[in-house]
Parts: sequence; structure tokens; C-alpha cells
Amino acid sequence: MSNLKARMTIDPAYRLAETDPRIYGSFIEHLGRAVYGGIYDPGHPAADEDGFRQDVIDLVKELNVPIVRYPGGNFVSGYRWEDGVGPVEQRPVQLDLAWRSLEPNRVGLNEFARWAKKANSQVMMAVNLGTRGIEEAKQIVEYCNHPGGSYWSDLRRKHGIEQPHGIRVWCLGNEMDGPWQIGRKTADEYGRLAQEAAKVMKWVDPSIELVACGSSGSKIATFPDWERIVLEHAYDEVDYLSLHTYYGNRDGDLANFLASSLDMDAFIRTVVATCDFVRAKKRSNKTIYLSFDEWNVWFHSNEADKQVEPWQVGPPLLEDVYTMEDALVVGCMLITLLKHADRVRIACLAQLVNVIAPIMTENGGPSWRQTIFYPFAHASNLARGVVLHAPVESPKYDSKDFTDVPYLEAVPVWNEAAGELVLLAVNRAEEPLALDVDLRGFPNARSKEHIVLTHPNMKAVNTKDRPDEVVPQKRSIGAVDAGRLSVELPALSWNVLRVRV
Amino acid sequence: MSNLKARMTIDPAYRLAETDPRIYGSFIEHLGRAVYGGIYDPGHPAADEDGFRQDVIDLVKELNVPIVRYPGGNFVSGYRWEDGVGPVEQRPVQLDLAWRSLEPNRVGLNEFARWAKKANSQVMMAVNLGTRGIEEAKQIVEYCNHPGGSYWSDLRRKHGIEQPHGIRVWCLGNEMDGPWQIGRKTADEYGRLAQEAAKVMKWVDPSIELVACGSSGSKIATFPDWERIVLEHAYDEVDYLSLHTYYGNRDGDLANFLASSLDMDAFIRTVVATCDFVRAKKRSNKTIYLSFDEWNVWFHSNEADKQVEPWQVGPPLLEDVYTMEDALVVGCMLITLLKHADRVRIACLAQLVNVIAPIMTENGGPSWRQTIFYPFAHASNLARGVVLHAPVESPKYDSKDFTDVPYLEAVPVWNEAAGELVLLAVNRAEEPLALDVDLRGFPNARSKEHIVLTHPNMKAVNTKDRPDEVVPQKRSIGAVDAGRLSVELPALSWNVLRVRV
Amino acid sequence: MSNLKARMTIDPAYRLAETDPRIYGSFIEHLGRAVYGGIYDPGHPAADEDGFRQDVIDLVKELNVPIVRYPGGNFVSGYRWEDGVGPVEQRPVQLDLAWRSLEPNRVGLNEFARWAKKANSQVMMAVNLGTRGIEEAKQIVEYCNHPGGSYWSDLRRKHGIEQPHGIRVWCLGNEMDGPWQIGRKTADEYGRLAQEAAKVMKWVDPSIELVACGSSGSKIATFPDWERIVLEHAYDEVDYLSLHTYYGNRDGDLANFLASSLDMDAFIRTVVATCDFVRAKKRSNKTIYLSFDEWNVWFHSNEADKQVEPWQVGPPLLEDVYTMEDALVVGCMLITLLKHADRVRIACLAQLVNVIAPIMTENGGPSWRQTIFYPFAHASNLARGVVLHAPVESPKYDSKDFTDVPYLEAVPVWNEAAGELVLLAVNRAEEPLALDVDLRGFPNARSKEHIVLTHPNMKAVNTKDRPDEVVPQKRSIGAVDAGRLSVELPALSWNVLRVRV
Repeated sequence: MSNLKARMTIDPAYRLAETDPRIYGSFIEHLGRAVYGGIYDPGHPAADEDGFRQDVIDLVKELNVPIVRYPGGNFVSGYRWEDGVGPVEQRPVQLDLAWRSLEPNRVGLNEFARWAKKANSQVMMAVNLGTRGIEEAKQIVEYCNHPGGSYWSDLRRKHGIEQPHGIRVWCLGNEMDGPWQIGRKTADEYGRLAQEAAKVMKWVDPSIELVACGSSGSKIATFPDWERIVLEHAYDEVDYLSLHTYYGNRDGDLANFLASSLDMDAFIRTVVATCDFVRAKKRSNKTIYLSFDEWNVWFHSNEADKQVEPWQVGPPLLEDVYTMEDALVVGCMLITLLKHADRVRIACLAQLVNVIAPIMTENGGPSWRQTIFYPFAHASNLARGVVLHAPVESPKYDSKDFTDVPYLEAVPVWNEAAGELVLLAVNRAEEPLALDVDLRGFPNARSKEHIVLTHPNMKAVNTKDRPDEVVPQKRSIGAVDAGRLSVELPALSWNVLRVRV
Repeated sequence: MSNLKARMTIDPAYRLAETDPRIYGSFIEHLGRAVYGGIYDPGHPAADEDGFRQDVIDLVKELNVPIVRYPGGNFVSGYRWEDGVGPVEQRPVQLDLAWRSLEPNRVGLNEFARWAKKANSQVMMAVNLGTRGIEEAKQIVEYCNHPGGSYWSDLRRKHGIEQPHGIRVWCLGNEMDGPWQIGRKTADEYGRLAQEAAKVMKWVDPSIELVACGSSGSKIATFPDWERIVLEHAYDEVDYLSLHTYYGNRDGDLANFLASSLDMDAFIRTVVATCDFVRAKKRSNKTIYLSFDEWNVWFHSNEADKQVEPWQVGPPLLEDVYTMEDALVVGCMLITLLKHADRVRIACLAQLVNVIAPIMTENGGPSWRQTIFYPFAHASNLARGVVLHAPVESPKYDSKDFTDVPYLEAVPVWNEAAGELVLLAVNRAEEPLALDVDLRGFPNARSKEHIVLTHPNMKAVNTKDRPDEVVPQKRSIGAVDAGRLSVELPALSWNVLRVRV
Repeated sequence: MSNLKARMTIDPAYRLAETDPRIYGSFIEHLGRAVYGGIYDPGHPAADEDGFRQDVIDLVKELNVPIVRYPGGNFVSGYRWEDGVGPVEQRPVQLDLAWRSLEPNRVGLNEFARWAKKANSQVMMAVNLGTRGIEEAKQIVEYCNHPGGSYWSDLRRKHGIEQPHGIRVWCLGNEMDGPWQIGRKTADEYGRLAQEAAKVMKWVDPSIELVACGSSGSKIATFPDWERIVLEHAYDEVDYLSLHTYYGNRDGDLANFLASSLDMDAFIRTVVATCDFVRAKKRSNKTIYLSFDEWNVWFHSNEADKQVEPWQVGPPLLEDVYTMEDALVVGCMLITLLKHADRVRIACLAQLVNVIAPIMTENGGPSWRQTIFYPFAHASNLARGVVLHAPVESPKYDSKDFTDVPYLEAVPVWNEAAGELVLLAVNRAEEPLALDVDLRGFPNARSKEHIVLTHPNMKAVNTKDRPDEVVPQKRSIGAVDAGRLSVELPALSWNVLRVRV
């Protein structure tokens, strides 16, 4: 019997927003072994005719990732995209200053677009606003999206890509506020550059959507004035503002770590407020939406990375091995994103393969699912449809950095087409939690499935040799009785409750 | 008999300024059918060995245009001039984002210089300060004006142009304040860029004159602080400040439309004041002159242009068909420019062929004169010499936007060399106006000719099929009597009074 | 017998700082006949297999110059370094706008590095921040210093330079505050650009040291706020701040001219103060050091230079012929730099050959030493080691611009390894000065040598035909007696007192 009890009310009349499928996006950067040794490994037994690992593609499909941001990240701020197109043997090897690695340019935008198609994904392309300006931004859109008959579109066709890539979402640089960025900008510098780049890019292809860089994190000193200033320049020209955040359990304080998603929630609320402040100041009736295009747990590899020799191709950088507790935090972050589905239209788990990633590979060897693979796959595959406002009554706790942390983190998503209500829920408590759900308004609700991810050891991980140490389990689930569903969420667990409606 | 009576006094002692011939300049932009299908149409029966239409050249000569601005306009802010030189078959086809047209680069600066020579005109060249910087500004001046022995000048010679073009007047970008501009700049951004570009351009060729961008119009929110800030940066380096304005009769309010030139007059006065404010602040004894390098009526084609498909070569853009009333406004604007000849040294009717232009062509077909051709041709051919201060006493009216609009708009120009005094005059009234001119100081004045442009229908136009619907007429003119000339100006008419002196 | 008497106390316990050998640096700019006709003259009888004049190299070795700044100066702000590498016959001839000369690019960075090695010198390389940005700054560091395996480093190897040049000190542009500079920047513009360029350059090679531009002189209106603002942006990224100064005896006022080094002293003090103000504001514990990378007398050639025709290769520009009094000022400046050896770590006599230089050549003819050659050679060869604080008691005078000018300017440098104490001293008086030196703490002090440079005619110069008109002389020197050395410094003389310790 649980001592902890929580209640939720779920009513289809209280619609927050339709989830945008792109909330389940991810990210492939030219960084570490994401590309070289990750998605691309031409000598691998599972490599296809393009050198892409089929086993990795299969895992990406299992994650059901509708959009993948590319090619960076910090990398893009020094990237010359034209180095990566045309005959492979003529492509230069470049020093990538972002990660102090060697970029052989064997994979470029055309190869990546091909890979994305195989992975059932769209490309979310970033342009370099670190070392480059608006002319190059125009040229890459023309190369990618213009049908033909002009210099850059005909160059694409000469490179064997007859049809335009039709890339719809474009990032105006990456984390331009960060001192680590190649060609960092002040908020005014970046706001102006983003505005002018946006104009020329949309003149080439008015159907594209543009993401301006928000702050690289809510802890940087220029947040949230960065957002205000950037939007004061570029409000009319851009469609989304980006957010990035990463959490880690550096102090070994589990309760505090599990509460990290409250910081993410506050971050989103502040950015929404800032966007709407500028909307008022501009007397605009346009709404800026959010692209949370980097989010994850990241801290395990920090020290190891300092030992990596510079100027390698595909060095083992940012290879966090994720624990069970990391999967719970990722689950809480997914729920938080969904609870803001009215404004968050794009989100990208950073990243996808090897680099702080749900999928790991060994060069020439096997691939496997990290712990965080599971909550993402569950949400991406099942939590599509309408997010419902659902009041939660839960006992709470205080931690080092947070107060009033609810033990229960949960969000219901109603997939009307599939006739299914999915409740994603994390129990942050170290004991089971009894959840009582009032399903008012779903008169035909019938419980279907309870999937649980947990482990006796919160530090448990999946590795090449023990890839199934942490895997989800099915649990028995009681019937819906008089419109109520009672279910027990195990201690420190990720839960998916599926109800036919 | 007229009820309206006006008086003028014209005295050679009251000299305002020698007119600079360049006040009768015009403008050819890579826009619509100005170049392709306008001046250049190699398949046309009248095309010469360079593909230039001889009939168009003849009409341009009839207009007597001493200088033509080129190649833009908004176009220049994305233009790569080197795309338009060298072997034609190697020139790239580019997307022009300014007008969302296709630029085939079959005409470039060398071809245009050749055309201008045939048209008895000088080139006023604009450099791209939208997407480019000072190095490219240096290179184009070196290519055009340096004799040889250096990379860029030798490239010109390699392209078959042994002698330097000797282009004297250069525009530092175009309308850099406008949100529609490729690579718009803030006033500080532009002032700094103009200053630095000016330096390198004059170091290559100290004999050149430079025009900095003023506001794109007096109604833009940044006017006239734009002018102040730009000059605070670049006062010492530039010679002229540009002004642009266009008027239209959007509400069908003729009296108000005819008064438009009062707005132009106020615009000029404000810019002069701003220039002289900065002069005082800089403790400078240098005077900045004005280049009114875009002016005309423009509104007829606005709606039609929205329907034009993008990415065509030479699409039918900005093809205003001018009415009789437009010709009156153009006449008033010409008179206004002349009344400021002490500061306005360059002016460009925008534009010359097909695009809001006095000359129209049909691709492969005939060319003809629009209504506005005539006042421009009269002024350009006859009103050369010294502008005289000439007090006008005229009855006045009020309109929607203006008060105290004189029915008579007039300016005398004394061509001493030709022994002729020319009075340009518009009667804004819907009835004839009796004008009494006191020719004190011209003891030998003898009336010579009275040319009139008017039409019973103010909406009358010239078209391919009726090219002579609106044409000037000679009217009888009385003798100068006791130093006075009495003449009747017809209702709503443009008038040229020629007096031998 | 002297009426003027001065005293000094020299004690090895009062160490100011170890002199950095680079305080004896110099400068070769692509300007006038410094390169073409100076160090490089392939048709010259003394030219070696690379076209470098061996006689000039020998004189440079005599000066013992450990580091040479290159390739500018103002020149660098328009320089495209890649024009000067690769096959000589493919290099373009460019207009150099800084000096309005023709740059044939026959000598480029690889040739200069080769020359510097022959001259026993290091290269101090400047990057172009006038017309170029951070990408090019990255590329030149990669070309020069990266071992290989990347595009730009492999290009160097393709050009025959297998081993990286290993250039340690880099200038972030040149005099970016000066209106004469190609692509001048405001302090904010430059501070931002320097910061971002510094980042990418150090990411390519973390072992390099960077010099940010301070003011081009202490008389420019933006001094010293320029220094403050630049450092507020780039404090963390740069290592040195530059200073430049030149003096001249334009009014024929010798006493005032000789006092010029007091201005240099005040300049250094102000820059140190400004650096340390920013250090405090930044809460930093990093110290910024000074690079006084242009200093000399410069005024003789100013008028002549106005007559030089533009667009020549190697025109006779800035060819000051130095007098005896100039050598005294150079001596005072050397002493001043040494007195700030705790903060001045680099200094460059501007320049080295022909252009305001200690070494003069005739194209195809002889080379010779100017008057200023001697104090520099003495200091560079002998004054190495530890600068000692040494209180001077000297009579003083007032001049037009200075008050309390000591007749004696002097600094002791203790070369512990060589067992020698060297006292550099200038007597500014028009009569001999009796100097009494208390050598406390050097119990075994024995006087060794007294070298004097003076001339009865302060306007005396060395020329091709009279190259030895002004040369140093040895003087008799008394013994150290009871720890005291008494010596007479001739009127208007440069003195080197060598004492074995």
C-alpha cells in the first residue's frame, strides 16, 4: 500500500493544444562520433550503399523522430556548407574550431538529407551566422530549396540532386550569445544579423520557417534581455525562438536532480513572457513560438572530454552513459515540454547518436539503446494528439534548489484519431505513489496498458555488453471503475498509462 | 478672360545658382523591363550590333539625359558586379531578391557603359553596400577607373576595355534605411560603412564624387535623424546626400495630387537644414550637396505588380501608364528641383525605360513617349543656365494635405550663352490663369515661343496604339511690352515660355 | 670641469624586471623600399639565392633584432596574405591603398619567414582586421602554425614549407583607431572584432600570444578611452596592448625635442593605468603587458613624401635621414622603454630598413648605418638582463612642452650571466655632465669601457658617401673607487658605461 497519494482530473473539454509532431525532434551535429562512426560508418557490416548504418536507422525509426536538427550546434558557426557538397574526393579537410576536431566533409548536406529520408525524418537546417553573413544564408536556401534555373540551384542539380530538398525549418545560427561560440554576437549584433538573414532567406523561399537563437541557457548573464533585444530587432521576420538546457546530477543529490524539469518549466514561462512583452511593444498580433532545440541530461562525460586529443576525425566526445535516474529526468522534461505544447512547437533531444544520445554505437560494432531511449520512444510513439489541461494534486517536497516539487509529474495526451488517452507520469518519490485519475468526460474509458521503466539501482546503465539492463516492463492495470482509474506508480519510475477512450 | 491672375518679377541680378546639367539625370535599374526588353533587346529589328535598341537610344537622346544612375536601386544591394563582366556565356544566372526576378547577367557594367556612351550620357554607378563591404567597393572602382597594371584594372583590359571608364559619380549603396532593402542598415551601421567605403574608393581614384544614402523618403520614421547620424559619421568623406520621393493620386483627389511638389520642396529644405546642422557641429566649411536621385509619380502599377510571377527575366514590373495629370506633377517637381539648384546638383527621374518611365517599349515592338516625357524633355533641353530668384504672386488654395498651394508653380532659367530666358510654369487651376511677368533687367526681351502641354481629359494617356494622345502644342504669345509679358496659361497645363534676352 | 653634476645609486637588490629580449624588436612593412630595394633586391651583387641582400642581413644581425613585426603597419589593413604565397608568377599585383603603392607580391609571408631566419629573428605577424574578419584570421594561423592534415596547413606544405612556421606573436590588426586606416573601427567595433578573432586564432594554436591595438598615439582624441573600451571587450582573450609614438624636431627646438621621451614615459604610464583599471573592473587576476611596437623619430621625410607619385613598386617613402640629435632622442626612448621593462615586453623600432630606419640602402648599391643605428645596437647587444631601479639626482630644465626635464636620462641593466653592469645614459645638456655612480652592492665592480656617441654638429648625418660621419668612440674611464664611479658625459651625448661586477 502506498502512503503517497495523488489525484488527477482529465477532461477532453480542457484542451491545451494539439501537439506538434516536431516536439519529438532530435539533433545530429558534426561532433564526436555522431556522424562519423554514428550514422555513417561505410566499413560497418550493417552499412548500406551510402555508408549509413542500417541498425542505427532502425533504432532512429523506433524512436520515431519527425525532424532532426543539423549540422550544429557550435559546429555550424564555423561551417562552410559548400565544403560538404560536390565530389567527395574534392572536399577539403577543415579544422573545426568548435570541437577542435578534424572535419573530413565526407558527409554534407546532401548526404544528410538522404539519411534523413531513410530515417523517415525531416531536416531542420542551421545556417552559419558565426563567421558568415546574409549572402551565404541566401545561397544555401537557394541551393536546397530553389527548383532550378539559377546558379546555386543548378549547382545542386549538378551534384545529382534534381529535386529541391524542400527544407522547411531553418535555424538562424546557434547559441550566438555564448562566449564559446565561433563569432559570438551581442544581442544587438545578433538581432540585426538574424533580421537581415531572415529577410533574404524568406525572399528565396517564402514557405520556410525560421528559428532565432534565444539564450544558450537560462543561467547565462544576458538572459532574458537577450531574448528581448533579439526580438525587438527580428520579431516580424522570425517564427520561433530557441531554448537550450541540460541538467546533471553533479552532487549526487537525486531528489534535487529529479526536480530539474521545474527549472525547464520556469525557463519556458520566462521566454513566453518575453516574447509576449515584445509583441505588446510592437503592437503586433503575431505570436512567436518556441523551439526547444537542445535538451537533455549532460554531465557524465565532462571530465573525460578534457583528455581527448584535438584534431581527430570522430573523437569520442560527449559520450554520456545514461543511468536510470537520467531516464527519469528525461521523462520529466518530456512531460514539461508537452505541458507547454501551446507554445513549444519544436523540440530536439540533443543529440541522437553517440553524442549525449539515446542511441550508442561501437565503431564497426553493435548499437544499443541507452536508458533515455525508452521514455523518448514511448512519448514519441504514443503521446500524439491533444494535450489536455489536467490539474494534479500531489504531495510535494523541497530540495536544494527547488521548493514544492510534486512527487507526481504527469501529462495526458488524447489521441482522438487512435481513440486513446495516454498519461505520461513520473513518480519522483522513493516509494510507490497511488494515483487516482478522474476520467470525467471519457464515458467509454477502458484501461489498456501500463508500461513502467524503473530499476532497483538508479545508477544502472545499458552498455554494449549489457544492453538490456534497464528496459521497460508491462504492469497489470485495474479496470476503469465509475470513471476512475486507480493505479500504483512504482518508486522512482517512468510510467505510460494507455486508456482506450 | 481669366479670373485668376498671377504676377512674377524676373531680374538677372537675382541669381540663385547655375543649374548643374546632372539635374536632368535619369536611372536604369536591373528591374522589370528596364534593361531586358527596354534598352537591350538583341532580337529587335532596331537592335544595333550590341543588342541595344536604336529607337530607345534616340528617345533617350531626345530627353537629353546627361547622367544615368545604374544598376540600382534595390537591385544593387544584392548585386555581384563581377557576375556581369567577362565572357557572357560564363556569367551566372542569379536570383535577384530585390524584385524576386532572374538576373541573367547578359548586360553588366561594361555593356551599360557602352550604351551610356551611345546615349550621350555618363554613368552614375552604385556599389553594393547591402551584402558587401569595403573591399568589393575598392575593387569595382579599380576595375572601372584605374588605368592598368593592377589585378582588377588588368581584368577590365582582359575583358576588352582598354581605357578606364572614368566613372565620376558613385552611389554608396541604395536606400539603406528601408526594411525592404537587402542588408538594410541602421543609421549608425550605414554611416560607418559609408565612411569606410568612401575612403578606400577615393584612395583608388581621388577624382570621384560620392553620394551617401539619405532617407528613402520623408515619411519613413527614421527621417531626418538618419541624415544627421549618417553625416555625423561620413561628413568629411562624402559629397552628396541622396533624396528619393514618389507621389500618386491614390484617392482621385487632383487638387491634392498637384500640390505634391510642396512636399518635395519641404523635404529638400529639411535635408539642407540637416546637412548644415552637421556642418556647424563639425566646425566644417565644406557644404554637402543633394542628389535627388529618385523622383517621379509611381502608383498606377502597384496592384498589378503583386500578380507578377517571381523568378522571370524582365518581368513587366512597375509599368505605370502616365496620365496628363501625372505630367503636371512631374512638371511641378522639375520646377521644384530647379528652385533648389543651389543645393540640388544631381537629380534622376526614376526611371528611364518601361519601369515608371517616360519611355515605353514593347518587346520586339515599337517604343513611344509617355505624357511625362514632355515636361522632362522641355526642361532638359531648354532650361539650362542660371536659375533666377523670382517672386511669384499667385492666388492659392488648400487641399487635403496642403495649405496655401499657389495655382502657379514657376521658375525662370536664364541661358546666357543662348541668349534665352526660359520660364517653366504649371497652372494647377481648373481654369486659365493670367500671368503678368515683369522682365526688369532684360531690356531687350522679346517673346519667342509658348509651348503648352494639356488635355481636356486629365486621365488621358499615350499608348502603343495612341502614342500621340497627349502631346505639346505651340500657342500664340504676345509681345513683351514695356518690360512686361502677359500670357494666359490654360487650365491644368504645363507651359514653357521662351524669351530672347 | 663640469658645472653640471648628477648622482645615481645602483643596487642589485632593487630589481625592476628581467628585460624581455623582444624589447629590441623592429619592423618591416610592405612600405616604400623596406622590402623591395631594402631586404629584397634580387639583382643586387650581394643578393643571396633568395634575392635577399646579404649586406643588409649582416647589418640586421649587428643590430641583434630578436623579433620583426610584419607585414604592416597600415599596409596590413588591406592585405590579402594569400596573394603572397604560392607560385610567384601567379601572384596578383595589387593596389596598396595604405601607401598608394603597387604591391607585386613577390615577397610574401613564406619568403619573409625565410629572411627572418637568416637574420636570426622571429616573425611577429599581423592579421588584417581592416577589410577582413575572423575566418581569414583563423586561416592564416592554420597556414602558418598547424602541422598538416588540414586544408590550409596542407596548402603551406604544397608551397614547399613542410614544417610550420611556429609564429608565436600575432598582432590583431594595426592602428585601428586611425582615420587613415583602411577599415578603421570604433573602439567598440574593434574590441568586439579583436575578441572574436582572438578566440578563433587561439583555438587553432593555443600557444600563440596576441597583441590588441591600443591607440595609434597618445594625441588622438579617443585616447585613452579606446584602450579602456577595447580591453573591456577583449581583456580575457588578448595578452598585450600596443602603443605607437613618433617624435620630431619640427620647430628646431633641440631642448624640447630631447625631452620627447618624457611624453613616451607618460604615455606608458597611462596605458598601464588603463589596463589595470579594466583588470579591477573585470575582477581579473590577469595582467596585460605592453607591446610598444612602433617607436622612433619621424618627421624629416613628411614633405618629400607628398611629392611621391602613387602606384609605384618600392617608392622612396618615409626615408628620414637621421641626425645626431635624433640618435639622442632614440637613446632616451630606449632608456624609457627599459625603465618600464616590468610591463613593456615587446617593442619594435619602426622600422628596420630604408623606411624611418637605422639601415639605409641604395637600390643596387651600398648599405650603411644611420646615426640611430648605434644606440639601438648598443642597447640590444649589451643591455640584456635585469633592469634595476636606480634613483637619479640630476639638474633639470624646462622646455616648451615639458617641465622638470632631467639633463641625465639613464638606466642600469645588470647582465648577471655575463657578470656585467651596463649603464645607458644620455646627457641632454649642451655642456658636459659629471656623473657620480654609487655602486653599492657590487663589491667587485671594475670599470671596463665607456662608449660615447656625439658630434660637434647636432645636424650631422651619415650618408652613402659619408657613412661614418657619426660613429661611436671609446673614452677613457676611471677606476671604481670605494664603490663609486665618476665619469664625465660629454655635452649632448649617448653613453654606454660597462662595469664588470
